[in-house]
Amino acid sequence: MVPTDLRRASLNTATVKHATLAEACEVAAATGFGAVGPWRDRVQEVGAAGAARIIADAGLVASSLCRGGFLTARDDGGIAAALDENARAFEEAATIGAPELIFVVGGLPAMSAPGAGPRRDAEPADRDLVAARARVADRLADLVPIARDHGVRIVLEPLHPLFAADRAVISTLGQALDLAEPFAPEEVGVVVDTYHVWWDPALREQIERAGRARRIASYQVCDWILPLAAEPLNSRGHVGDGYIDFATVSGWVCDAGYTGYVETEIFNEEIWSAPPEATAATVLSRYENHVHPHLDGGPARGL
Amino acid sequence: MVPTDLRRASLNTATVKHATLAEACEVAAATGFGAVGPWRDRVQEVGAAGAARIIADAGLVASSLCRGGFLTARDDGGIAAALDENARAFEEAATIGAPELIFVVGGLPAMSAPGAGPRRDAEPADRDLVAARARVADRLADLVPIARDHGVRIVLEPLHPLFAADRAVISTLGQALDLAEPFAPEEVGVVVDTYHVWWDPALREQIERAGRARRIASYQVCDWILPLAAEPLNSRGHVGDGYIDFATVSGWVCDAGYTGYVETEIFNEEIWSAPPEATAATVLSRYENHVHPHLDGGPARGL
Repeated sequence: MVPTDLRRASLNTATVKHATLAEACEVAAATGFGAVGPWRDRVQEVGAAGAARIIADAGLVASSLCRGGFLTARDDGGIAAALDENARAFEEAATIGAPELIFVVGGLPAMSAPGAGPRRDAEPADRDLVAARARVADRLADLVPIARDHGVRIVLEPLHPLFAADRAVISTLGQALDLAEPFAPEEVGVVVDTYHVWWDPALREQIERAGRARRIASYQVCDWILPLAAEPLNSRGHVGDGYIDFATVSGWVCDAGYTGYVETEIFNEEIWSAPPEATAATVLSRYENHVHPHLDGGPARGL
Repeated sequence: MVPTDLRRASLNTATVKHATLAEACEVAAATGFGAVGPWRDRVQEVGAAGAARIIADAGLVASSLCRGGFLTARDDGGIAAALDENARAFEEAATIGAPELIFVVGGLPAMSAPGAGPRRDAEPADRDLVAARARVADRLADLVPIARDHGVRIVLEPLHPLFAADRAVISTLGQALDLAEPFAPEEVGVVVDTYHVWWDPALREQIERAGRARRIASYQVCDWILPLAAEPLNSRGHVGDGYIDFATVSGWVCDAGYTGYVETEIFNEEIWSAPPEATAATVLSRYENHVHPHLDGGPARGL
């Protein structure tokens, strides 16, 4: 007895980190999700063709593939490696039927030779953010034709400024849209991930802009909770447990015309240690209560 | 034998957290700083008039007073308390001769009655960021006439988005400038604190805008280091130890016409446990090597 059609909800496999792709799909389908958002490690374990069968056999679709990117290398070897790795990821996305590959663009380039201590290991090869961002734009120009050949859209994910040094030199939706602008909307889109963008004073206008440009490729949800975890990367909470105003942000995303899947992607040691069935049930119930009513109040459109 | 005039450097007393104001001033003067940026707790320990004497006797000036603000309360009691507290802070600033009071504007309003666990304690009374920001604007309108009567400028400090939930709903320099715009430049300024704004893709243009509007009231420096400390608030590093490109940002601040003091404000348990003399020497040397050459290459102007 599912009161509303919640098949617009997608379970990102990182939320049930310890489940195989088959286990994650089984749980997602049994709980009532319409899609999964797989990570590449779980796809590679069974091969892309095998992953495609697992997802289809569960009656699901892949809402996206996580993830490509890491485009800030300065040296020829690093640049070539990034292009190769992303080409493989496009192929996997195409094989599993994921229309989009999420890109985390990378942080300041790391030292090639790590130093003595943990802090020195993290020392950047250079601190030139402006140049690192320019290299992201150059790599996008390299990769768009390859993605197009695979029928896959590149989706830029701005990450919270907390991760600007070591993970993504793109921190705002506006910045992602600026980088996407030279390309067609079906070539480069953006993801609105509440965890990363909720604080942005320009969020409403940039979501509107993304909608007008037909570039909203994914809406991802999880909550900002405090205190931060010892590993800040794994500090995300279930929707409703933290500070984010999901009614408002979901309403903006809806008003911008987004009708696609809503992925819940949570990195959190405590949630990872829970049984996948329990996590999936909580995720879907939070989606139903905090997100779904503010999207369009009804069943999925155009999926 | 000080090779260049480094008296443009100011030692924020939070950087030598365990020193009294007298100890901090003695160390700052002996090291070669031209100013200190005191926190209110250290001023209140000796009274504002006493603090004024201590600073003057050391041959220093107060470059600013930290800090006022915390303006996001929703209830009448909380609003009245914020106005009273800030009025006291203006009076202290005027008494110690600090031309500016730094404002940290506050996070989402806290629950009035704390709940069971640490996470519940942090739960916001509401999650309406847009409304919280509007209340900041309302309180600024209340406080500007009071600050003017004291001859003190309110200085808005955007905080890193890491602190948007619990400490400051102003996260970017652009947002601070928008809030300042209804008021005269001598009434409301902004501080450029590298730790908080280094990641901002709009940083260069917003520093230029702040300069054109004659609103840059303070330039504060410290570095973004990784991994984050267990208490992220105390995760700042000495200039040069982390990811921030001080040459570039200092050049932008210089080009925007800023000729005032440069405060080093570091929250870091390890640095706090070092002798104040050693910390002050490191701070001044890092200022000399990483910041001063990119400001105007010469002695302080107009101080």
